[in-house]
Amino acid sequence: MNGPSAPPLLAARMAHIAPFEVMEIQTLARQLEAGGRDVIHLEIGEPDFRTPAPVVEAARRALDAVAMNYTSALGIPALREAISAFYRERYRVEVPAGRIVVTAGSSAALLLALGVLLDPGDEVLLADPGYPCNRHFVHALGGVPRLVPVDARSRYQLLAEAAAKAWTARTRIAMVASPSNPTGTMLEPGEVAALAALARERGGTLLVDEIYHGLTYGRDARTALEAGEDVFVINSFSKYFQMTGWRLGWLVAPQAYVREIEKLAQNLYISASTLAQHAALAAFEPATLAIVEERRRELAARRDFLLPALEALGFRIPVKPDGAFYIYADCSRLTQDSFAFAREVLGQAAIALTPGKDFGFHEPGRHIRIAYTQPVARLEKAVARLAAFLGKGS
Amino acid sequence: MNGPSAPPLLAARMAHIAPFEVMEIQTLARQLEAGGRDVIHLEIGEPDFRTPAPVVEAARRALDAVAMNYTSALGIPALREAISAFYRERYRVEVPAGRIVVTAGSSAALLLALGVLLDPGDEVLLADPGYPCNRHFVHALGGVPRLVPVDARSRYQLLAEAAAKAWTARTRIAMVASPSNPTGTMLEPGEVAALAALARERGGTLLVDEIYHGLTYGRDARTALEAGEDVFVINSFSKYFQMTGWRLGWLVAPQAYVREIEKLAQNLYISASTLAQHAALAAFEPATLAIVEERRRELAARRDFLLPALEALGFRIPVKPDGAFYIYADCSRLTQDSFAFAREVLGQAAIALTPGKDFGFHEPGRHIRIAYTQPVARLEKAVARLAAFLGKGS
Repeated sequence: MNGPSAPPLLAARMAHIAPFEVMEIQTLARQLEAGGRDVIHLEIGEPDFRTPAPVVEAARRALDAVAMNYTSALGIPALREAISAFYRERYRVEVPAGRIVVTAGSSAALLLALGVLLDPGDEVLLADPGYPCNRHFVHALGGVPRLVPVDARSRYQLLAEAAAKAWTARTRIAMVASPSNPTGTMLEPGEVAALAALARERGGTLLVDEIYHGLTYGRDARTALEAGEDVFVINSFSKYFQMTGWRLGWLVAPQAYVREIEKLAQNLYISASTLAQHAALAAFEPATLAIVEERRRELAARRDFLLPALEALGFRIPVKPDGAFYIYADCSRLTQDSFAFAREVLGQAAIALTPGKDFGFHEPGRHIRIAYTQPVARLEKAVARLAAFLGKGS
Repeated sequence: MNGPSAPPLLAARMAHIAPFEVMEIQTLARQLEAGGRDVIHLEIGEPDFRTPAPVVEAARRALDAVAMNYTSALGIPALREAISAFYRERYRVEVPAGRIVVTAGSSAALLLALGVLLDPGDEVLLADPGYPCNRHFVHALGGVPRLVPVDARSRYQLLAEAAAKAWTARTRIAMVASPSNPTGTMLEPGEVAALAALARERGGTLLVDEIYHGLTYGRDARTALEAGEDVFVINSFSKYFQMTGWRLGWLVAPQAYVREIEKLAQNLYISASTLAQHAALAAFEPATLAIVEERRRELAARRDFLLPALEALGFRIPVKPDGAFYIYADCSRLTQDSFAFAREVLGQAAIALTPGKDFGFHEPGRHIRIAYTQPVARLEKAVARLAAFLGKGS
């Protein structure tokens, strides 16, 4: 047997899976913190809010009342109904509970959707920059991610025109995220409809990641489910409902696929966490919605503070992000190597940022992601430190 | 778009994934129950015990004390350490916490192990009969399951001699389960060592499912980790600790693979349930172990009641199961079609059983799985009903 650094046999897919660069930043951050430095964490992709109290309370009640057995692979009926009702009330869209599959986070939702759609060698169109795990899921199933470079001209979104050009005989899926991670931009309903029409025309499928829905500022998101019953949508309790560690999400699929998804879910997951499912029943209660809407306003205030402050420091943000809790800043006036820049900012200003490299191959060196998952007071401190680091005074 | 029964595009892998036959039995059972019949469920693969109170109590404390954020993809350090300590205390084997990966059930442990080891077209040797999900995981990753028929002569286990014969140039993994589902039989330590030596000699890997450890009767299981640091082992909190719905398990991997497994887990799962991880810290406490050991004695009593009773009814059980909570009975003196038999037993005796078809292709028609996940009083009732159904009086 070889040493720890060289596994004797390693699947080829692992060569496609780069470690997250931000992990190196986090390791360095922990070293600084161990040495007593106060590091401001603007690299973390999860809210700094605790799970809303009514959800925690529902979990507490379920611990007493519910035997923690496996559930149906599709999820407990009450939660599927509650999600269906949420689509009716929030979006004015009818989505039958029978099309909703409760999953172990949106991670599982994505694997199930790709699992029933994708054969080895099939291609999936993805925006670059984008959430890096998406292309790794495609690799895991033997598919081929086709990264389509996007920039400010399309608001960092993969639009139908670019998707049509990139579409080949092996393309099966166009996947978009609205709001997007890392850019926070949304697709317009007309743009989603055009993508759905393209996929339909080419005999493929549109798959839309809506996990940052609810965290949009100044405008509400509309769901891609409006664009037709043949669209796949993934969503999550993680971000808007602040339930990251509970690992619960859902998939809305065309009716024709539900039985197949159920079979795959039975085999790959058995079922999602029983306790998380019962807790999530409280997510749609008015008391919870009041809490998460208040937090949404707080996130909007953070964005509105940070955008002009970063621009004043020399970052360029050509497209104002609509949602999520990220700013994808062009730092090319400050550096051509955002990874080196992130290390310097950490070392000298004690601020952790995520370099563009983590989101793809299209101009990563001139971009950096700033997550506003810290209170405004911390963001003010971060801006002051950055100003000092950049020699701009403050 | 086609109708609900025909998805317009379907991945080829789905053709390999048969629905569980037992689902049809369960649907029929629910219909009977809706009509007022008292169905005895001997088809269910999870214990009828509630999660032990100290584990539930630990979850309750964590709900107050712990922010439910993502954890490290490898699991919280305290739980990895606790599992390592459990190997030391229970098995007298040193397994560093650094080799232990906490996963979203053993389902995730298996996908991660296969994910880092298996390229498309690579073969995995599996015993037939066996747990059907295993071969579907292999398919999901583009691998090829090679089912090796096993019978009473090898105690329904895949032994080194048969594995050596089935091994081809494309074989990468031999996977065994001890105790096995559906047969409940264990491998002897010498048999595990021979499999590990074979895998080593052929440049492959031995992967051992130990999820029913702790539920063995009359003898304790030894872990395959004794057989070398190059063996992969998966385990779970589901069965012995009665935490099925919590979705928590673990993988022990050779040190050389841990970094790769971490990368894959970050991408495919992010992390396992935070609450479940904190709850599971209480699994190894003396109070919990006292509860699960008492339940183990209860399961032993059920097995010891059911084995002779079934034999008296005409079932043949050529190998006494060592563990799990299953009896894999040869029903060929009663029927040549165990699926039809299961439907008749349900309709006429209101007992739900799992037909052999769910476990593979080797003589499924003459086998049936009986799960003793019900109290002895219910098992007595089941035996009386079976006797009446078979015209044996009681």
